[in-house]
Amino acid sequence: MKKLKEEEAQKIIEQLWFRHTDNTIIAVLQDYMTKDVLMVGHMNKEAVFRTLTSGYVHFWSLSRKKLWLKGETSGHYQLVKDFKIDCDGDAMVFLVESVGPVCHTGNRTCFYRSSTDLIK
Amino acid sequence: MKKLKEEEAQKIIEQLWFRHTDNTIIAVLQDYMTKDVLMVGHMNKEAVFRTLTSGYVHFWSLSRKKLWLKGETSGHYQLVKDFKIDCDGDAMVFLVESVGPVCHTGNRTCFYRSSTDLIK
Repeated sequence: MKKLKEEEAQKIIEQLWFRHTDNTIIAVLQDYMTKDVLMVGHMNKEAVFRTLTSGYVHFWSLSRKKLWLKGETSGHYQLVKDFKIDCDGDAMVFLVESVGPVCHTGNRTCFYRSSTDLIK
Repeated sequence: MKKLKEEEAQKIIEQLWFRHTDNTIIAVLQDYMTKDVLMVGHMNKEAVFRTLTSGYVHFWSLSRKKLWLKGETSGHYQLVKDFKIDCDGDAMVFLVESVGPVCHTGNRTCFYRSSTDLIK
């Protein structure tokens, strides 16, 4: 698991552009082994800070308007192995090790609906 | 390249929740071969429709407030090979074949800044 020092996390946060709803960036979770995209969520400054310093993915919930440690109720934590920032700093990719399914439906990924399922 | 009929595209659009800025969903582009995440953008209803029926990725530009065929000026089109929808319908993953670099910086992916570059 990757954990940063507070000053390293601040340095990352300075590179970010919190331009999306509720002053957030977009966070894409990608399985560090299979490279499957598991989930897309939003992070405000505090969620990024906590994610980087604890090594556990935290989100800002747009629906509930609160900070949210992914797995806090389900136990399905997302452990950060590595991360990347995009060119304009409004999105990050987190390579994660997923404890159990990511999706609240019980599926391994939130992107379990494929084109063939959807247009048959 | 994957191209849908108009009625198939409408069926997909009915599954989506355009909840983000300017009535959009989040679109993650992923290389269909390497599975690298290449870019994150937004799509409104028309951008999704045009993407699915033409097989070329279209976005809604949040900055320019206009529809945008990715590659229209650079020639770096993104050809849709397949796609997925997430559990609540506010995000899609597009597996693409990328003609040239995706990023306006000339990098293959917009996520070219890695954690090791950023905190050294």
